[in-house]
Amino acid sequence: MRDIQKEKPEFEFPLNKVGVKDIAYPLTVLDKENKEQHTVANINMYVNLPHTYRGTHMSRFIEILKKHRGQITYKQIKILLQEMKDIFDAECAHIELTFPYFIEKKAPVSGQKSLLKYDVKFDASFGKIFHFILQVNIPVQTLCPCSKEISKYGAHNQRSFVSISIESKGLFWIEDLVKIGEESASTEIFSLLKRSDEKFITEKAYDNPRFVEDVVRVITEQLNKEKNIKWFSVGVESFESIHNHSAFAFYEKK
Amino acid sequence: MRDIQKEKPEFEFPLNKVGVKDIAYPLTVLDKENKEQHTVANINMYVNLPHTYRGTHMSRFIEILKKHRGQITYKQIKILLQEMKDIFDAECAHIELTFPYFIEKKAPVSGQKSLLKYDVKFDASFGKIFHFILQVNIPVQTLCPCSKEISKYGAHNQRSFVSISIESKGLFWIEDLVKIGEESASTEIFSLLKRSDEKFITEKAYDNPRFVEDVVRVITEQLNKEKNIKWFSVGVESFESIHNHSAFAFYEKK
Amino acid sequence: MRDIQKEKPEFEFPLNKVGVKDIAYPLTVLDKENKEQHTVANINMYVNLPHTYRGTHMSRFIEILKKHRGQITYKQIKILLQEMKDIFDAECAHIELTFPYFIEKKAPVSGQKSLLKYDVKFDASFGKIFHFILQVNIPVQTLCPCSKEISKYGAHNQRSFVSISIESKGLFWIEDLVKIGEESASTEIFSLLKRSDEKFITEKAYDNPRFVEDVVRVITEQLNKEKNIKWFSVGVESFESIHNHSAFAFYEKK
Amino acid sequence: MRDIQKEKPEFEFPLNKVGVKDIAYPLTVLDKENKEQHTVANINMYVNLPHTYRGTHMSRFIEILKKHRGQITYKQIKILLQEMKDIFDAECAHIELTFPYFIEKKAPVSGQKSLLKYDVKFDASFGKIFHFILQVNIPVQTLCPCSKEISKYGAHNQRSFVSISIESKGLFWIEDLVKIGEESASTEIFSLLKRSDEKFITEKAYDNPRFVEDVVRVITEQLNKEKNIKWFSVGVESFESIHNHSAFAFYEKK
Repeated sequence: MRDIQKEKPEFEFPLNKVGVKDIAYPLTVLDKENKEQHTVANINMYVNLPHTYRGTHMSRFIEILKKHRGQITYKQIKILLQEMKDIFDAECAHIELTFPYFIEKKAPVSGQKSLLKYDVKFDASFGKIFHFILQVNIPVQTLCPCSKEISKYGAHNQRSFVSISIESKGLFWIEDLVKIGEESASTEIFSLLKRSDEKFITEKAYDNPRFVEDVVRVITEQLNKEKNIKWFSVGVESFESIHNHSAFAFYEKK
Repeated sequence: MRDIQKEKPEFEFPLNKVGVKDIAYPLTVLDKENKEQHTVANINMYVNLPHTYRGTHMSRFIEILKKHRGQITYKQIKILLQEMKDIFDAECAHIELTFPYFIEKKAPVSGQKSLLKYDVKFDASFGKIFHFILQVNIPVQTLCPCSKEISKYGAHNQRSFVSISIESKGLFWIEDLVKIGEESASTEIFSLLKRSDEKFITEKAYDNPRFVEDVVRVITEQLNKEKNIKWFSVGVESFESIHNHSAFAFYEKK
Repeated sequence: MRDIQKEKPEFEFPLNKVGVKDIAYPLTVLDKENKEQHTVANINMYVNLPHTYRGTHMSRFIEILKKHRGQITYKQIKILLQEMKDIFDAECAHIELTFPYFIEKKAPVSGQKSLLKYDVKFDASFGKIFHFILQVNIPVQTLCPCSKEISKYGAHNQRSFVSISIESKGLFWIEDLVKIGEESASTEIFSLLKRSDEKFITEKAYDNPRFVEDVVRVITEQLNKEKNIKWFSVGVESFESIHNHSAFAFYEKK
Repeated sequence: MRDIQKEKPEFEFPLNKVGVKDIAYPLTVLDKENKEQHTVANINMYVNLPHTYRGTHMSRFIEILKKHRGQITYKQIKILLQEMKDIFDAECAHIELTFPYFIEKKAPVSGQKSLLKYDVKFDASFGKIFHFILQVNIPVQTLCPCSKEISKYGAHNQRSFVSISIESKGLFWIEDLVKIGEESASTEIFSLLKRSDEKFITEKAYDNPRFVEDVVRVITEQLNKEKNIKWFSVGVESFESIHNHSAFAFYEKK
């Protein structure tokens, strides 16, 4: 059979990215407490395409993915990207894996344990240098300092999402980023709370009002202290309970 | 050309629904204050298919829709469905239109005006009888009665969505359903609030704690009083600010 | 602490459903080939609420879920729903679990293996009778019979989704429903295809043109033959490659 | 009342972006054929926040938006961003508006007219320089050259989305970008096609097979010829009808 993909294209532009998107795949990822955790990822994989080839062989991405099933760690991703470069004869390879990750949390008073889900993304590329960006999305509560200050009683609060992206020297645990994110908010949140916990959480949030701007700055202060973090960005989006839109703040360390 | 759709199918089952889904279309709908409002809808259209036909001619749905552009009212939908029955030689025709609808609201203290969006659905079918169901989704705030009761200060609150579906005798205004939904919550919400409004809203919600169960019951009490409403259902989903999941309650009048 | 939920409501309507929505949870489900499979589910849980209670204790849903972690089978779900009835003193309990499920498939010519994802839903309720509905969503290809018939060459085809819901006597394997769905289409699809497979798939689809109406009827014919299936419905949605909307057909066995 | 937002923050980092997200708003935009078009947008608005302020006054974003209702053109957006800079005392202002846009198209043989929806984004920022990026997402059909070449008959094809982003000198019409995108694919698509049109489209696509890589390169060739375009990027995603994932290609002009 003719290999059309290998032929010369009509217009000889090199392409930045060719590949496959939205592949669902079961994964095993490292877990700080339990060694490993089973999850399901949504995956994108790309390489650059030189101007001399018309197309890429999309099936090879799936073959590479298949070969590495169950080994999606910081180290394995570098090996996988090197294989992509070799197999596709490419200068740069790129993979994005997005997956739910669960951490068991203890309610603050009752001590009841429950699992909370965090959306995690590994965004890794390997051109001349290997880059690995870890992104963690952390649900929290923010309570509005302005609302508390101006009101005789009460204060509006809401579910907010902290999104932290980092590039670190070596492994940085998801669990450690989650901790930094949760401690920055008015209060962390839980899947299972008894009434004694609910009282604790309610009062803690009221004692600790935070704008989205405050949360971003508290996290920035913490991440600046981490010597193993080379680059980071922090976004906080608050699903305001007095509006039908969000408040948002963002910082990027250049 | 052969008309394959009109031929006999291999297996002669009558089908409940055949049609088109996810058509985007600009609409003009009735507006209680401003006579009409421009919006953009997502539309599904179906008819039943007798056992004798292999398929339906999907392009005819679009032709019917095109003919009625700009006239999507209670009365016009009945005419449109009758046309669907005639053109497709069908016993039953069905249309679903989902669209954002805006109402101008006045902030409670400053009086500042702003637009709030409500997601609305018209779900109409015409078999032997014409049925028209109006669904309105209303963003509100709920403040937890339990959290208020057990805590020394503060109370968790959050954005919640009230979904009311009704079948009425004649026209029932979207605006009137929105009012019933908003008055049932701890507080209604707004796009634009100055600080005096934020104080008012915060205190109002604290004075008026509501479980999702309470909101459903208050609305049920109101809708039961409306003589023009023949059937209704009410769902309330609260995006809890102490959890990463929702609380939900639902009532249907049989 | 006062137990507000147990108090009398202002308006004494019994509610059809109260509960929790959109809980993410890791699951282990039965796998026909590999005994079990790890996945991550989105879960809703409800009970009815008598007119005498103001609210329900939402944390108990999470406690019940936690207790059953790793045991989400047909049998366990019945036990779980009975526990919900007991703990909430309810007449009816309801659970919905939606999750990705992977099946290893062999490419038709090369024999290369790869995983394909199917979205699965368990929808179970237990009032007087236990009902368990299994829904499987199956990606396939449909090739248009009309386009093939009227064109000198070629025929438009596209990705389509078959959604089959059944209520069966006893266990019915996800894998067996998937097979019925895949055999009904112009061709089944795969994650990994070499060129020999792509040729096979392309020609198979062209030899086997199907409207969405055809696919629904072929599946209906098959499900009618299954003696263990008491009730079913079949929907097929085709993401037309000549339009930006879908074609849809639906049958329900009453 | 105390103005908490104006106070000094605990940690004095300047923030890149503070603002509001996910505001729904009715818009009037310019239309090449009909002068103007009513639509509904999803809007994000941000400014940078100096290290000296704790927070921003979120309500002001809505006030600015309200003032400009009905005037969202290239020129008005520059004025709006200048107002944001003035009102927030900011060095940089940023707005993103995403909305459905409809173009009336004529079927190729029957000449029947119908509306097709394109998702459009205006992404504008004003720091020292005003940047306005227009993004248009265009649904098309791609037919696989490899599948056509290796198969005795037929060829798999599918719905694909072309996403073109440009920065131009002065106004560049949405309609003109759509034309470039549609002409690059195996065939453009329509909402309403009679059988004679379906035959034409089917054969045209078969005569004109295109990989996602081809489509990106054809568009790149065209955009390079446009003297008023200073920067652009092109992404093409194809919802493969033989897989349950997408093929993707991307080019960015630096």
